[in-house]
Amino acid sequence: MKKNLVLKKLKKDEVVSVVSIGAFPYASLVEMVGKIGFDCVWFDMEHRAFGLSELSQMTLACRATGMEAMVRIVKGNYTSLMKPLETGATGLMIPHCKSPEEAKEIVSWAKFPPQGRRGFDDAGVDADYLMSDSLEYIKQANQETFLVVQIEDKEAIESIEEIASVEGIDIFFIGPGDLSLSYGVFPDFNHKKIKNAIRKVAEATKKYGKWWGMPFGTEEQGHSLVEKGARFLTGGADIDLILKGFQARRKIFDQLQRYP
Amino acid sequence: MKKNLVLKKLKKDEVVSVVSIGAFPYASLVEMVGKIGFDCVWFDMEHRAFGLSELSQMTLACRATGMEAMVRIVKGNYTSLMKPLETGATGLMIPHCKSPEEAKEIVSWAKFPPQGRRGFDDAGVDADYLMSDSLEYIKQANQETFLVVQIEDKEAIESIEEIASVEGIDIFFIGPGDLSLSYGVFPDFNHKKIKNAIRKVAEATKKYGKWWGMPFGTEEQGHSLVEKGARFLTGGADIDLILKGFQARRKIFDQLQRYP
Amino acid sequence: MKKNLVLKKLKKDEVVSVVSIGAFPYASLVEMVGKIGFDCVWFDMEHRAFGLSELSQMTLACRATGMEAMVRIVKGNYTSLMKPLETGATGLMIPHCKSPEEAKEIVSWAKFPPQGRRGFDDAGVDADYLMSDSLEYIKQANQETFLVVQIEDKEAIESIEEIASVEGIDIFFIGPGDLSLSYGVFPDFNHKKIKNAIRKVAEATKKYGKWWGMPFGTEEQGHSLVEKGARFLTGGADIDLILKGFQARRKIFDQLQRYP
Amino acid sequence: MKKNLVLKKLKKDEVVSVVSIGAFPYASLVEMVGKIGFDCVWFDMEHRAFGLSELSQMTLACRATGMEAMVRIVKGNYTSLMKPLETGATGLMIPHCKSPEEAKEIVSWAKFPPQGRRGFDDAGVDADYLMSDSLEYIKQANQETFLVVQIEDKEAIESIEEIASVEGIDIFFIGPGDLSLSYGVFPDFNHKKIKNAIRKVAEATKKYGKWWGMPFGTEEQGHSLVEKGARFLTGGADIDLILKGFQARRKIFDQLQRYP
Amino acid sequence: MKKNLVLKKLKKDEVVSVVSIGAFPYASLVEMVGKIGFDCVWFDMEHRAFGLSELSQMTLACRATGMEAMVRIVKGNYTSLMKPLETGATGLMIPHCKSPEEAKEIVSWAKFPPQGRRGFDDAGVDADYLMSDSLEYIKQANQETFLVVQIEDKEAIESIEEIASVEGIDIFFIGPGDLSLSYGVFPDFNHKKIKNAIRKVAEATKKYGKWWGMPFGTEEQGHSLVEKGARFLTGGADIDLILKGFQARRKIFDQLQRYP
Amino acid sequence: MKKNLVLKKLKKDEVVSVVSIGAFPYASLVEMVGKIGFDCVWFDMEHRAFGLSELSQMTLACRATGMEAMVRIVKGNYTSLMKPLETGATGLMIPHCKSPEEAKEIVSWAKFPPQGRRGFDDAGVDADYLMSDSLEYIKQANQETFLVVQIEDKEAIESIEEIASVEGIDIFFIGPGDLSLSYGVFPDFNHKKIKNAIRKVAEATKKYGKWWGMPFGTEEQGHSLVEKGARFLTGGADIDLILKGFQARRKIFDQLQRYP
Repeated sequence: MKKNLVLKKLKKDEVVSVVSIGAFPYASLVEMVGKIGFDCVWFDMEHRAFGLSELSQMTLACRATGMEAMVRIVKGNYTSLMKPLETGATGLMIPHCKSPEEAKEIVSWAKFPPQGRRGFDDAGVDADYLMSDSLEYIKQANQETFLVVQIEDKEAIESIEEIASVEGIDIFFIGPGDLSLSYGVFPDFNHKKIKNAIRKVAEATKKYGKWWGMPFGTEEQGHSLVEKGARFLTGGADIDLILKGFQARRKIFDQLQRYP
Repeated sequence: MKKNLVLKKLKKDEVVSVVSIGAFPYASLVEMVGKIGFDCVWFDMEHRAFGLSELSQMTLACRATGMEAMVRIVKGNYTSLMKPLETGATGLMIPHCKSPEEAKEIVSWAKFPPQGRRGFDDAGVDADYLMSDSLEYIKQANQETFLVVQIEDKEAIESIEEIASVEGIDIFFIGPGDLSLSYGVFPDFNHKKIKNAIRKVAEATKKYGKWWGMPFGTEEQGHSLVEKGARFLTGGADIDLILKGFQARRKIFDQLQRYP
Repeated sequence: MKKNLVLKKLKKDEVVSVVSIGAFPYASLVEMVGKIGFDCVWFDMEHRAFGLSELSQMTLACRATGMEAMVRIVKGNYTSLMKPLETGATGLMIPHCKSPEEAKEIVSWAKFPPQGRRGFDDAGVDADYLMSDSLEYIKQANQETFLVVQIEDKEAIESIEEIASVEGIDIFFIGPGDLSLSYGVFPDFNHKKIKNAIRKVAEATKKYGKWWGMPFGTEEQGHSLVEKGARFLTGGADIDLILKGFQARRKIFDQLQRYP
Repeated sequence: MKKNLVLKKLKKDEVVSVVSIGAFPYASLVEMVGKIGFDCVWFDMEHRAFGLSELSQMTLACRATGMEAMVRIVKGNYTSLMKPLETGATGLMIPHCKSPEEAKEIVSWAKFPPQGRRGFDDAGVDADYLMSDSLEYIKQANQETFLVVQIEDKEAIESIEEIASVEGIDIFFIGPGDLSLSYGVFPDFNHKKIKNAIRKVAEATKKYGKWWGMPFGTEEQGHSLVEKGARFLTGGADIDLILKGFQARRKIFDQLQRYP
Repeated sequence: MKKNLVLKKLKKDEVVSVVSIGAFPYASLVEMVGKIGFDCVWFDMEHRAFGLSELSQMTLACRATGMEAMVRIVKGNYTSLMKPLETGATGLMIPHCKSPEEAKEIVSWAKFPPQGRRGFDDAGVDADYLMSDSLEYIKQANQETFLVVQIEDKEAIESIEEIASVEGIDIFFIGPGDLSLSYGVFPDFNHKKIKNAIRKVAEATKKYGKWWGMPFGTEEQGHSLVEKGARFLTGGADIDLILKGFQARRKIFDQLQRYP
Repeated sequence: MKKNLVLKKLKKDEVVSVVSIGAFPYASLVEMVGKIGFDCVWFDMEHRAFGLSELSQMTLACRATGMEAMVRIVKGNYTSLMKPLETGATGLMIPHCKSPEEAKEIVSWAKFPPQGRRGFDDAGVDADYLMSDSLEYIKQANQETFLVVQIEDKEAIESIEEIASVEGIDIFFIGPGDLSLSYGVFPDFNHKKIKNAIRKVAEATKKYGKWWGMPFGTEEQGHSLVEKGARFLTGGADIDLILKGFQARRKIFDQLQRYP
């Protein structure tokens, strides 16, 4: 198992570049993106319709081009975390983490003993298809896989210190949509309640030596986040980029279709 | 069978807007594009890897949003033209048409008697899944389906008048890549040999009351084509737009990753 | 988001026509059914083997032909309700609702704040692929999506009044198979215990201004249900109709194969 | 390789029952049909959108239930006939056979030496996945696979005697749609030109000890064909039966929806 | 529903042969394995990436060749057990059973009343696609389907007697990987703690007239298990066998590539 | 485009190791094989049932692990060669080449001008998804892609010198099955006619500075081929290896099932 690029960069206090693919779950799209060059791709199984079969192909494209593969899982039980890892995910994002108890359960499902109680199977790609040494595999899998929990509920902000202190969670990711809904200020992502929440997450993660991040739009927004201490930045999604591309073409045709 | 929007606009001398989808052959992408609003989607089966199953879903998205579905076929025999039509294509593009004989054969495969000898089957979507009247279906299918042949070889330019005169071909589409390869001037699409070829196509199609078109990039290029008489304009492809979108994101991350 | 046809008809006290597709989860089958013309298709993910990918294509066929798409979900957590909605379902059926608490939880997962706590994402087809206004989307999604809970357990009948009073559930659907198993009278759907249960559902829904329904076979059975107040009627399933069709062909061949 | 049921019945002068599946290319549908019990399923790759992957699953359902699997191929070259056989087809139907030369070529592609020049590969299901004896496989494959050519062009009728005399073709199948188009009398399948053509096919096949057939609708039509000597009868297609089933349901709902 | 071969053999105290397919979830692979001849195939949905669609095709291959189809499920709720059964599984394996309460819940989800509360639907293959008698189906489904629970946690060993006494569980299957992790002795499958655990399982199952099993590698290991009383033996997995095959080929090429 | 490993090794007179995958067309299988380490994988589209979609995923696994991807094509027209190349094939094998004319046509379809007339499109993976320079792409594509023609007919042996002299064909591959059928000596691959044919191929290819190869079974057979001058050796196919693996397991179970 190779060194996890996301963890490596974070440990050097570098900004991690993450883009989203999932509306068009094609391995060739991931390979193209990998040739352009990003650190990590975010595959959203919570809100997109693809399954493990497509995920398997897309993580292969990550391996072929040197990117990490982060999966936002469908919440459930231990299999929800184990199967994406066996299918090539090198990072997991868990939505709606609301309490330290939940954070601990996540660690217990994602890590092999002694950290957790992940079930053993070494036929997956993360164990080199039966070709890895069992003990070495268990050690590496625990070490070179990162865990992200999403902070997107009022309750989570209220116990952010306890959540941030949980051993094994690496990154805390703010979900501005659901967070602002939770505070009743949707879709005002600049509301002071949201700003306050972001500040709390930044402080708590700093205190416990963890990292945090959130989505950004413009370069200015990205810059502002980096200054606040965010290092795990997501910006750019397949569906959003292609939408804007076609909308721009529509405007050009609008001009042409005025004629002749 | 509803009136074909492409033919309707061409007959009114209006510019037709065509965009390409095929690298990511997803019905939801087609539906999104249809909600933005174009006249026609170009599905390229000559150079993309999808099959009839994906085509079936993508033409459904065209019907749901009111766009025509044009398929560039894999050259072969009569089934090459018949099956896309039965799967919901309302226009066909045939690559590398080099002679009037070939153009006539295309018509004979694409049209039912008396125009051609297309094989009859009325269980496809173009016959409303067995719910159409057989004679009416045959008549409508011949009338409301357009044929495009690609002019992309030196030989085709040399006999462009004879090709343009073939009854049943509606649109002549210049392929600048292969055409410039054929003239040995690739990839100089502005070479005088290419310009000359375009002029010949424009003249021949005008003479026989047909239409022509080719791909364009910028609005200026599109404008120039419209002025030369082109009405069937293709511009904007899924893979190109998404590539440019992610490349732009890469530049933003380049800025952010200089810090901290 | 367009007006929900099922809700519209129910509000006018009209009978809603619902048919089932799922054994053969083909978009073209749904499109054919839509061309024949029904109000709603019932896609059963509880008992059929298809996934979100097929569902996505089939709901597109509903949009193309003007039918509502109701999904019977696999019971689970909040994603069980959210993902079908994001994939184009305009109604949800939840099996085995046994208590008012469960009914309330269903509402909380299916509706955005303030009614519930559904998670926000606007890249799905129900949000017009990022093209809707966020606040408007949230409002419309809550308004134009109907919720059906299945009453198919003794326990549910016993607390039917409390269940029927839960705000946000629109339709109560009796499942005669499991209900009769639950009462130990399977498969006697005309047993007085079942009749009694139906009566209770009819009364409770009437009292709280809700609607109810159940499957029917013959026209007579359908008529009897309408007279009892049922308005949400399901009758006709792909697998059943095709089975009967082939069985009838078998009888014809039996005759022919006696000869020569 | 087991004895081919179609050939066995034909040799005993029995009527063969053939039904069509392909609009909904599901193995479970084929298995259901097999449990009802027919001699052979007709899988139409000329006019339906499925590929070898679906065919592979559907022929498995035939093997599981004891039916023969006939594939109408997409016309092409030797692979068009070889691949369906390697995928489990036990009979092939070739559309639009117009001359004895074409019939001979079909035999040469479908049969191993010495009869033909079919290419050898023994990893397919028809060779028991490498588990058969090579020489025995070649012999059995030639013997227990039937060939059907479609007679559906004026030209074919004109040289029907020569076509019928070609060694290796077992069954001659009249396609009334294309044949009537070819004679210019479409869709009058009872036109005397068609009747005459049927008579010629019946006589020619009888003369050369072959069999013939065509599609039928009602029992009466089937009976009439049997009396004329047809033994290979096709009647009943998935899309047609399901269409009629849903149309009948629509009528019932029409009654119910008049009320209340 | 035919007699379950696994139960039949176990009742005669015979050894049952089980092999694993799932890394390459192809129906043709299952059919090939069935032609070689085993009693049962183990389809692992806990650790492999395939879904119900592939499962459906693979169980068909079991039916075609006379093998039982055992599915190791993804743990969840009642649908986790019901859907594989409706898709053709004739046995279920439930991972990580830790208590008699859990074992009882498994039975309640897998069996129809009166034994359990499995939900009724008779359109699946296990009910002969609507062609079975409802009462007979319920009875047969309960009788001819076997349940395996996995004993792979310290807690389970500690309450093995109570677990083994639960009515409706047929087979107890030891998972040496997770069990040794649970005891902190991984991967020493011969550790005395593991040996002790195996002994306890053997004794408890004997006491309650049940059966047990576990995976084995060499013939000697298999023999040793049979002597200890194990009858349900699994040995041979698609991915492991193909890996070893290609590794052996690599060694041959190593020799050849030294030259010339 | 990286240097083609097969061509590189052949130019150094080294033996090339080729294995076959296609019966189980899984990217994960290819990745596993790549981790073991071979020079090239042979994907057989002539005799296996997979399509371009699976090919696309499997060639990605080749790129991820540093193997070349050779596709045996379905014979047809220019698209038969172009599409696999655009889908990631870095070598093509053309079956049944019988004449120098055919060999020349193959080159004309597989190579861009000036060598041939391959059609231009740069959105495929071989052109780095629009990210390559057009002229450089054309040059590299011609240079770093190898062509193999199969010599498996008597006619081909008779004109082997002329075929071997055709510019652009790199490797001549003997197909012993069809060749022995063609000579009427099937399946005696050691018949003197076959030995003679092999000798002729070896001589002709040597004379024109080309390479040759054929399949082998045992190490001894491989050695013998290397001594005769063959450098392109294929040995080891997914279906064959897995079959032998399961057959060996069957024997072990035979021993175990004699007891108790």
